[in-house]
Amino acid sequence: MSSVLSGVKIAVLGGDDRELVLITELVKMGATVGVVGFPRDKIAHGAFVINTVEEGCKDAEVVILPMPGTNSEGVIRAVYANDNLYLTEQTIRQISSEAVIIIGSARPFLKKWSEEYNFTLLEIAEMDEIAILNSIPTAEGAIQIAMEESRITIHGSNSCVIGFGRVGITLARTLKSLGSNVTVAARSPGQLARAFEMGCKHGQLHQLPELLSQIDFVYNTIPSMTLTKEVLTHANPDILIIDLATQPGGTDFEAANQLGLKAILAPGLPGKVAPVYAGKILAQVIPGLIINELSKSDRSMLFG
Amino acid sequence: MSSVLSGVKIAVLGGDDRELVLITELVKMGATVGVVGFPRDKIAHGAFVINTVEEGCKDAEVVILPMPGTNSEGVIRAVYANDNLYLTEQTIRQISSEAVIIIGSARPFLKKWSEEYNFTLLEIAEMDEIAILNSIPTAEGAIQIAMEESRITIHGSNSCVIGFGRVGITLARTLKSLGSNVTVAARSPGQLARAFEMGCKHGQLHQLPELLSQIDFVYNTIPSMTLTKEVLTHANPDILIIDLATQPGGTDFEAANQLGLKAILAPGLPGKVAPVYAGKILAQVIPGLIINELSKSDRSMLFG
Amino acid sequence: MSSVLSGVKIAVLGGDDRELVLITELVKMGATVGVVGFPRDKIAHGAFVINTVEEGCKDAEVVILPMPGTNSEGVIRAVYANDNLYLTEQTIRQISSEAVIIIGSARPFLKKWSEEYNFTLLEIAEMDEIAILNSIPTAEGAIQIAMEESRITIHGSNSCVIGFGRVGITLARTLKSLGSNVTVAARSPGQLARAFEMGCKHGQLHQLPELLSQIDFVYNTIPSMTLTKEVLTHANPDILIIDLATQPGGTDFEAANQLGLKAILAPGLPGKVAPVYAGKILAQVIPGLIINELSKSDRSMLFG
Amino acid sequence: MSSVLSGVKIAVLGGDDRELVLITELVKMGATVGVVGFPRDKIAHGAFVINTVEEGCKDAEVVILPMPGTNSEGVIRAVYANDNLYLTEQTIRQISSEAVIIIGSARPFLKKWSEEYNFTLLEIAEMDEIAILNSIPTAEGAIQIAMEESRITIHGSNSCVIGFGRVGITLARTLKSLGSNVTVAARSPGQLARAFEMGCKHGQLHQLPELLSQIDFVYNTIPSMTLTKEVLTHANPDILIIDLATQPGGTDFEAANQLGLKAILAPGLPGKVAPVYAGKILAQVIPGLIINELSKSDRSMLFG
Repeated sequence: MSSVLSGVKIAVLGGDDRELVLITELVKMGATVGVVGFPRDKIAHGAFVINTVEEGCKDAEVVILPMPGTNSEGVIRAVYANDNLYLTEQTIRQISSEAVIIIGSARPFLKKWSEEYNFTLLEIAEMDEIAILNSIPTAEGAIQIAMEESRITIHGSNSCVIGFGRVGITLARTLKSLGSNVTVAARSPGQLARAFEMGCKHGQLHQLPELLSQIDFVYNTIPSMTLTKEVLTHANPDILIIDLATQPGGTDFEAANQLGLKAILAPGLPGKVAPVYAGKILAQVIPGLIINELSKSDRSMLFG
Repeated sequence: MSSVLSGVKIAVLGGDDRELVLITELVKMGATVGVVGFPRDKIAHGAFVINTVEEGCKDAEVVILPMPGTNSEGVIRAVYANDNLYLTEQTIRQISSEAVIIIGSARPFLKKWSEEYNFTLLEIAEMDEIAILNSIPTAEGAIQIAMEESRITIHGSNSCVIGFGRVGITLARTLKSLGSNVTVAARSPGQLARAFEMGCKHGQLHQLPELLSQIDFVYNTIPSMTLTKEVLTHANPDILIIDLATQPGGTDFEAANQLGLKAILAPGLPGKVAPVYAGKILAQVIPGLIINELSKSDRSMLFG
Repeated sequence: MSSVLSGVKIAVLGGDDRELVLITELVKMGATVGVVGFPRDKIAHGAFVINTVEEGCKDAEVVILPMPGTNSEGVIRAVYANDNLYLTEQTIRQISSEAVIIIGSARPFLKKWSEEYNFTLLEIAEMDEIAILNSIPTAEGAIQIAMEESRITIHGSNSCVIGFGRVGITLARTLKSLGSNVTVAARSPGQLARAFEMGCKHGQLHQLPELLSQIDFVYNTIPSMTLTKEVLTHANPDILIIDLATQPGGTDFEAANQLGLKAILAPGLPGKVAPVYAGKILAQVIPGLIINELSKSDRSMLFG
Repeated sequence: MSSVLSGVKIAVLGGDDRELVLITELVKMGATVGVVGFPRDKIAHGAFVINTVEEGCKDAEVVILPMPGTNSEGVIRAVYANDNLYLTEQTIRQISSEAVIIIGSARPFLKKWSEEYNFTLLEIAEMDEIAILNSIPTAEGAIQIAMEESRITIHGSNSCVIGFGRVGITLARTLKSLGSNVTVAARSPGQLARAFEMGCKHGQLHQLPELLSQIDFVYNTIPSMTLTKEVLTHANPDILIIDLATQPGGTDFEAANQLGLKAILAPGLPGKVAPVYAGKILAQVIPGLIINELSKSDRSMLFG
């Protein structure tokens, strides 16, 4: 359609169905898109397959890594790749200092390299825009799990949402609208005031032990140990725990197991339950980021 | 707790997890409950196991058959029974003419027998109270299927609900509150006015061909052929059809298959997705019905 | 625009702003519209002013009377008329037996005349289509009164809706969505089941005394004595009573006064709070009724 | 009930019905409460009347000024006072340097004095807790105005909410739940993403001219010139403008007037439409603030 990315060289390294939607969009916008870690028949006509990460990075003005990024050994998440894709220091060194790397969340080693080798690193998972839009499939995926794993309805059940940030707000609104009695447990008085405005009951985090005694479904969104053994001992024995915080979650899973409580760690739901939707979010946000970054470097050249 | 059913002899013939909840409640209320088609360790302390349908019916003042009743050969639905349980004319003949048989929906043969042998037959599936309460797990179960079978979110999707009776109203409200754009297709102007009040788009049934061209999820609740081949040829090729009408549903499944449309027949959801909830509904409604019926016969005796 | 009413002679006798919207629409559809009880400068270009009810009725194929109709003396409600407009038997006698009279609600004398003089009388206030669409401005008007007359917010307040018909359902949904804790008091188990599905608390009418002790706002929609002295003695002393039932309402206003309870009778809200909207409802429904009726008489002539 | 404020000397200088609720609560908590600017019969038993601001300030550990504070001449808002109450530098100088002054919003002169004379000044209107809780009566008051000033229903109308902070979010949610089609105009992509999640349409502020052409009700919450003459020239001629930003609002009222557009400036709604509720908010938040501040000074003494 448009050609706002005309001629921009982009490498997409690994990923899942979301990247397929994104690639299609980037090609439509005129970019020259090289793809590593996907079979030929999966990717959009117009993009071309590259065999190695090294090759992909050479010459690229923009390198796109998946939302979950890499593991601590540098293995790029790539569900359609036959072999492991590694992001190594050697590869990174080849990247132009004017290049932009876009990733969901970066491990410490990648942040260090970005400073050392002076390229721009954009972590997008925590951008409000991405995180709020992703909170929608996260909430739906969490509710789907609740439906699948329980023998009661959401309607009329007692739910507790721990944490009232981007995911917590969406989840509380959705559960409430399904007819659940929702209690929000959060830290700040402002968050609790908003929960009240949305028609939820609410309490402080330190009140969790008493709050959980009557709860059927508890959803944790805080990425630090929240559902401790101490808290869990007070929970309704039939409670279902759904932990949405990034790995390793905020639940003492061992304690839950010992206490006979059902607990499920469910990070990264958008890519799993609604990859097409989640891909569209990327396709909606990333081109704007690229244009923005490239115009910066243009300007620096103009005045350099 | 209470003992309002003290001494009343009740036979529960077959069923599933819902009946287990119901049996527990009836025992609590003081009834003498005999159960056919469940293993001893499943049923509530206080109820006793009976081996045959015949034995169960003899002496019973109230006979409870499951919501789905029997098939056309008289086999009672009984998911925990080892052998088929048959409801035969011979058995029925033994039932006292003052007895009450409670069932979800009765086949024609059972209705005929109730006239012939003069017992009271209560079909409860179509009672407003039961049907509206059951519409809640039906709606949630339908949405769970939609979540599981699609790669997009309910939020932002285009849904069409066909029929605006007890299930249709609940489903439309629920989908709307999840953020879907809901179109209601129904017959009466009053139903369409109510759909408008609830914030839904709406159209006549004869407009289905045009309505379905932009729809992602269509839910049929009308128990007669509605999604005909003609209608389906106009549907969005990526549509997901979820048919909630009692078997055989209202969809031309063969045509759907030929056209490459995904179509799922999903009757009887309450007992599947939320048996505990659905059992509580029975436990909430049936005792009142029994008390009501027994007081009638008492009264007729008093004035007889 | 269209000319589906081309040449049909319609008399509009009295009314308020709603009729002004309707008249405009009828003229657009090609009807010949004579109007009694409005000044020239108020009515749509194309309609013509008639001075008397008698003159208006002569020759008219369709006579439109206002939603509130007449009082018991036959005075037609006509807020813009300088003098009283009377609907007399003498006038009615002149009406063609093939004519159709459309009115909101008819007094007994008009019903009697319709049988005697054999014209068709359509009472539309109770048609589902009209009543449900009118329930929207009724609910908003009732809530506006609650806001104006109280010093607390609707959000977080305790509301009780008595009756769960067309107005009650809309009102309960609206109050609930504003964040009020809503209790529905109604007669049938099916209505209470629906209230539960909508997230409301609920009780039987005979429980009103206990229900009202904690209620801030009570809305009555049942057109018979419901809020009796006995019930009111148990009400929260700060309660605000808003009675939406047609005059004389369902509240013992004298008792309320004696008990120091604030009670407001508020019938006919659509015409007061949202006349443009309410006029559009008439303009949307009445032309269809006319076409329908005229086609009947045509057919009867064809086959007569 | 409790006595957590036992012996604390508090002066309440002016205010409206909200302060009456607050005073009652402070007395209950054991505080010694002196009140300036209210007649004896209005204030709670246990509080005592003081005649002048000077006297009130002397010895007070906590001085409470109203939410709207003072005007630029130092006149304290005091709706029940017979004469103007002035907050002068001379009075302020008498206040203990360990005293706490609590006010909604302070004028620059008061801020300067707090630095000069070294007392603690707490501006609470912008605290999340207060502002979010106050957003509820603000939204309801704004909708009440919309209902009173229009002849259409909120349901089905097109609303635009400008700004998506604490008031904007509550207002959008409330309007949406009443069945209005809501468009949110805001600056940040995160705010627009949240508006999308809540089911609203959305646009950038620079798109206001096109956005407003189809809008029935526009609510401004941004406290700077937003509805400029340029923007207003593109608005629907029947639009109703409700400006909720603090005086002088964000609307060019002169231009609106010239263009024949109805525009209403409505700041400070909580105290007007729901004084009891708004007073409860103060009574809920202020005691905690006092306890918190006093414990700080205690601690500083302990370690001083």
